[in-house]
Amino acid sequence: MSSIIVTSASELNADQEDSVFVPLLSPPNSTSQVAIVGSNVCPIESLDYEIFENELFKQDWRSRGKMQIFQYTLMKWLLCFLIGLIVSLVGFCNNLAVENIAGIKFVVTSNMMLESRYGMAFLVFSVSNLILALFASMITAFIAPAAAGSGIPEVKAYLNGVDAPDIFSLRTLVVKIVGSISAVSSSLLVGKAGPMVHTGACIASLLGQGGSKKFGLTWNWLRFFKNDRDRRDLVTCGSAAGIAAAFHAPVGGVLFALEEMASWWRSALLWRSFFTTAVVAIVLRAFIDLCYSGKCGLFGTGGLIMYDVYSETISYDLMDVPAVLALGVIGGLLGSLHNFLLDKVLKIYNLINEKSVAYKICLAWLISIFTSCLLFGLPWLAKCQPCPADTSEACPTIGRSGNYKKFQCPADQFNDLASLIFNTNDDAIRNLFSKGTNDEFQYSSVLIFFVTCFFLSILSYGIVAPAGLFVPVIVTGASYGRFVGMLVGSKSNLNHGLYAVLGAASLLGGSMRMTVSLCVIILELTNNLLLLPLIMVVLLVSKTVADGFNGSIYDLIMKAKGFPYLETHAEPYMRQLSVGDVVRGPLQLFHGIEKVGNIVHVLRTTRHNGFPVIDEPPLSESPILFGDTGGIDASIQFSAGDFAKRGSGNGDKIEDIVLTEEEMEMFIDLHPFTNASPYTVVETMSLAKALMLFREVGLRHLLVIPKLSGRSPVVGILTRHDFMAENILSLHPLLVRSRWKRLRFRFPSLRKLFWGTSASIKA
Amino acid sequence: MSSIIVTSASELNADQEDSVFVPLLSPPNSTSQVAIVGSNVCPIESLDYEIFENELFKQDWRSRGKMQIFQYTLMKWLLCFLIGLIVSLVGFCNNLAVENIAGIKFVVTSNMMLESRYGMAFLVFSVSNLILALFASMITAFIAPAAAGSGIPEVKAYLNGVDAPDIFSLRTLVVKIVGSISAVSSSLLVGKAGPMVHTGACIASLLGQGGSKKFGLTWNWLRFFKNDRDRRDLVTCGSAAGIAAAFHAPVGGVLFALEEMASWWRSALLWRSFFTTAVVAIVLRAFIDLCYSGKCGLFGTGGLIMYDVYSETISYDLMDVPAVLALGVIGGLLGSLHNFLLDKVLKIYNLINEKSVAYKICLAWLISIFTSCLLFGLPWLAKCQPCPADTSEACPTIGRSGNYKKFQCPADQFNDLASLIFNTNDDAIRNLFSKGTNDEFQYSSVLIFFVTCFFLSILSYGIVAPAGLFVPVIVTGASYGRFVGMLVGSKSNLNHGLYAVLGAASLLGGSMRMTVSLCVIILELTNNLLLLPLIMVVLLVSKTVADGFNGSIYDLIMKAKGFPYLETHAEPYMRQLSVGDVVRGPLQLFHGIEKVGNIVHVLRTTRHNGFPVIDEPPLSESPILFGDTGGIDASIQFSAGDFAKRGSGNGDKIEDIVLTEEEMEMFIDLHPFTNASPYTVVETMSLAKALMLFREVGLRHLLVIPKLSGRSPVVGILTRHDFMAENILSLHPLLVRSRWKRLRFRFPSLRKLFWGTSASIKA
Repeated sequence: MSSIIVTSASELNADQEDSVFVPLLSPPNSTSQVAIVGSNVCPIESLDYEIFENELFKQDWRSRGKMQIFQYTLMKWLLCFLIGLIVSLVGFCNNLAVENIAGIKFVVTSNMMLESRYGMAFLVFSVSNLILALFASMITAFIAPAAAGSGIPEVKAYLNGVDAPDIFSLRTLVVKIVGSISAVSSSLLVGKAGPMVHTGACIASLLGQGGSKKFGLTWNWLRFFKNDRDRRDLVTCGSAAGIAAAFHAPVGGVLFALEEMASWWRSALLWRSFFTTAVVAIVLRAFIDLCYSGKCGLFGTGGLIMYDVYSETISYDLMDVPAVLALGVIGGLLGSLHNFLLDKVLKIYNLINEKSVAYKICLAWLISIFTSCLLFGLPWLAKCQPCPADTSEACPTIGRSGNYKKFQCPADQFNDLASLIFNTNDDAIRNLFSKGTNDEFQYSSVLIFFVTCFFLSILSYGIVAPAGLFVPVIVTGASYGRFVGMLVGSKSNLNHGLYAVLGAASLLGGSMRMTVSLCVIILELTNNLLLLPLIMVVLLVSKTVADGFNGSIYDLIMKAKGFPYLETHAEPYMRQLSVGDVVRGPLQLFHGIEKVGNIVHVLRTTRHNGFPVIDEPPLSESPILFGDTGGIDASIQFSAGDFAKRGSGNGDKIEDIVLTEEEMEMFIDLHPFTNASPYTVVETMSLAKALMLFREVGLRHLLVIPKLSGRSPVVGILTRHDFMAENILSLHPLLVRSRWKRLRFRFPSLRKLFWGTSASIKA
Repeated sequence: MSSIIVTSASELNADQEDSVFVPLLSPPNSTSQVAIVGSNVCPIESLDYEIFENELFKQDWRSRGKMQIFQYTLMKWLLCFLIGLIVSLVGFCNNLAVENIAGIKFVVTSNMMLESRYGMAFLVFSVSNLILALFASMITAFIAPAAAGSGIPEVKAYLNGVDAPDIFSLRTLVVKIVGSISAVSSSLLVGKAGPMVHTGACIASLLGQGGSKKFGLTWNWLRFFKNDRDRRDLVTCGSAAGIAAAFHAPVGGVLFALEEMASWWRSALLWRSFFTTAVVAIVLRAFIDLCYSGKCGLFGTGGLIMYDVYSETISYDLMDVPAVLALGVIGGLLGSLHNFLLDKVLKIYNLINEKSVAYKICLAWLISIFTSCLLFGLPWLAKCQPCPADTSEACPTIGRSGNYKKFQCPADQFNDLASLIFNTNDDAIRNLFSKGTNDEFQYSSVLIFFVTCFFLSILSYGIVAPAGLFVPVIVTGASYGRFVGMLVGSKSNLNHGLYAVLGAASLLGGSMRMTVSLCVIILELTNNLLLLPLIMVVLLVSKTVADGFNGSIYDLIMKAKGFPYLETHAEPYMRQLSVGDVVRGPLQLFHGIEKVGNIVHVLRTTRHNGFPVIDEPPLSESPILFGDTGGIDASIQFSAGDFAKRGSGNGDKIEDIVLTEEEMEMFIDLHPFTNASPYTVVETMSLAKALMLFREVGLRHLLVIPKLSGRSPVVGILTRHDFMAENILSLHPLLVRSRWKRLRFRFPSLRKLFWGTSASIKA
């Protein structure tokens, strides 16, 4: 670190010293910068995707030879390969474990029921569920609270530049994998896709930073990747791999990462994530081949397509269009209702979870008992039906899967509701999607199943355990679609299984609001290309309808958690405000040669992350802007350690640095560490235009310069928080009225009712 | 236009007048801003995607009520719907026309051959081909030269911000549609996908600007869309619709637009193009249904999937992997060779085409004759084979399609080479992809077919007619893959048809260098999801191998045409240069109050498009930057017409404006028209970082401000051309050595050989 010039105070002349001792402008810019991660409240950092141009960077870049560039490129691809390999292994093990644990549970229970020991069966079923659910929630609550929930909102926020602590730690990874297996095996209505996305992102992040620092697993040759930009790319690839492994949908995974997760995208990244998911597809394919020989226990011999509904010829004509449109419209309504209710339930759960860990565990305990009761109790309501004569499948079945479950029915009869509800989610979906089973299900059974799934999926998501949303939404949507198909009946050319597929698409569209990626994921799940035009229609209609009411489920969760997510588009009122209306001076400045004590003081008292560095040349009358520096960088200068760690974003806290009195009195030359060419905007620029720069280039802070020179060379600093609607509207309350220019249906009375409820709980 | 303040010269004080008369700095920044469009050399304009913030814009924005925003949103969707509808209609008609024209031709010729009138058959075949080819090339050469070629490079460059004239005119559209039909029907080895993309983009652009101005078809209610940003979005949707209509691949179309075409992408745009292609899919599906009843002549009853190769179970194991990898590697080599040769042939053709229109037509004439001779002559080389006993198809067939063509063979025998070569491209692909035909083709036939296609596709592209590249590459790749499959023979579990699919994928990957979009397009073409992991491997391998040699075919064509395409990533040497090293002062400035004559003079003598506007406030000693203005805007101020036309980008030339002497002496207040908050960069910023801003935000020009104030408030202006490698390297010749830091194999001797050839032709 030879370039750090430390001089004692006396070497500087007096008037400069004065201006150093008195910070030019005082109170720091402090919007609320905290959010709920998992179930804890944490401070939020921003990531920086800007090229940080200072002296050290330039030296670093120029010193890279051809060999190092080659090594860097090779390493990137190797990391992608490793991500694909590990994620597919985890995904396979996850499937294997779930199918075996849940399978044994169902086999044991079914065998007891065959002997008419119903009470014992219920006891075994509910206790094993309870143990699994409690295990999942306890490891989550005690070891890694950040592993709770789906993880998709956290990863999405990370890719937008919001660095919530602990979401990518090794602890979180382990808990997410183990917790997801036990939560899904416990018959809770939770999915595995969301946790797989988080797992993939986690693996990518850990690999990128060369292992976990805490556990001493670091590799030095990965130091090139210790910057936010490369980590972001790896995390994007990781989340693509997650979906690819969860749904055996490699192309769908890439598109999911592109459409839903990523905030920045380059075609090189598209290619790299495609490579990653190709590795996943091939490795998974190889493992599934291994299982054909029957070595995988109850895992079975399912191929690469999870719910195959291929049929040679699908014919549909104009008659089917109204039914499909209605399916889409109602699916959109249901999807937005689902999002609305989930949002409210999460708010209530958060109030409960805030109290103590015991409350969290208790909640998980309650939901598990409730679920077990429903799953075991509801099939008794269904009438037993005689087995069809012409079916190729066994009827009735006693074991785990199969369309015709025996449950409590006499010989040669089956319980259709049990086939759906007393089953793993995957098998329920397979049964709902199956063709040639138009007469299997009764109206009442499908309706009961739909209502149960709809509410259970809302109630189960918020518990403190890894819990995905995809599978619950698919199973709910499939039952809804099947029900619509039964209502339409013989008037349609489509069989009920295809209606179930369309129903799943409509509810997914209504809840998740994706288009291309959902379309491809459904295609890869069901292997039915001829249905594509109808799936596209359903997705478009349901998304359009649902967008009229509220945002996508992940956006709602991100908002509820308080992540400062930057949207791509500017709100209409941002065009009417200029940057100068929002930026809040007075701000903290550093001089080119600054006193150490002063820097430490500023860093300890502000949460702010970038500081303009100004110079006062002897001949000029006004100070000029030299550049800006990040808080973390400045702190690392003191820790005087390895400079390459700069971008890692955690650790190296200013509080941990111990300096002697003498050191505090010294001066430091900030020029070598300062980004000498930051992006700047003029204060008269509209907020919308500044947002475009901030968002497209991926900045952590943006310097605002004055229109007229002669004053201070910097007016202020814009951060992510200054673009948040809450912040702007608190500064300019008159805009609240004009804020709702985006067309959306609103129900003030309903809103009041719910807010009233949650407020009273709070009180 | 009440805000234009025009004052006579005498009202201004003397010293201001002086500075007005003498332009501060003189010669304009003029890099070569021309490119070859179609086969003509044209000046190139840049598009501007920046929000242009001046007084008028603000008034315009504030005056928009809820109703107008609603109208705007509705119109956008309606336009997308119309684009989808019209493109699918055009695509359907295109298919219908090609199948019927080419079909009749083959039926007539085959019937003559059945009567052993071989000479007559050749005459009819070659003359009809010649007439069709000449028609296509003549309408292209005389009516709309911009319609020549694929059109994908032009649209890609447009979406990057390069506005080549005439590419989206009504004339181009009509010629593209008609020319494509006749070129494809003429048995030239040219595709229809590229022209369909151009057609789609053209339709979108024309709809967006409310019809063709020249033909008086304009609608006033579309005035909101007369800006570059909205037009860009529509053109993206249009190109997605083009692929969707050409390949019946709606999802592939969206991904193609995303991966290959678009330089900027927002999730809203993803949704909108998804909607457009969904419309295409549904309309196409409806039309294909109509044709089931046999009303479409020879169009037949092909379903939505163009080359269906579905098979219930595809089993492949480790044994197949080396063969598939080898297929990918060789495919990559072939693809890069294809690109290399095509690039060279295009350069030679350009030299011929430059001479006169007669040469162009002559070239098309030669290629057509040559193609006819090959297509009719080569099958005579193949040995007739006896018809297989166990086939379900008719053998031999006389008509148009079918696997077993009779050609010159005796009864009960067929000519396998004729089945491939004496056929439409679609049927050849279908035959190559077909399963259960492992014994049909001889080694020699497939090899001859492959070599013919490889060279014909290279020779045919450059003629002056609409000509796509997709189908030629698919047919070449399929024959190559089939040949590899035959070589591997019974050692593999995959049938030869699947090898053909993989071969097509590998050559597409090696030539076009796309990943996800190609993968989905192939999937939608062939309906075989189980092959997905292998297709992914092949695409990855072939793209990786080919990228080691040269760029994608579209990039090469764009480069050959001279489009100043801005890449996403910065070249390594751009990090070592600062903006100040590249920007060329002295530049043209305007004052806030400027003399009309001065402005007109500057606009007439420069090709430059943005001018900084500076103010000299009485109290300040140094001038300050007020903003920047675009040349077109300034010119329109004089035409004093409809201000909303600003963004349309063509017409309104400065040369057309007639002003009196008196008007020339007047002064104009430029403030209301000036973008008061342009994006700026500091002169010390690295070029790489400035490029990121320029590219991500989509600018036309970028103002460079000095590091130290006190001097002129602007150092210069960066335009698209300043970021081009040619420009930078001409300024800094020492960087040429370091330029090749990107790893790529090079063959100086081969390069020399070819450059030598083309240079001697030039001489």
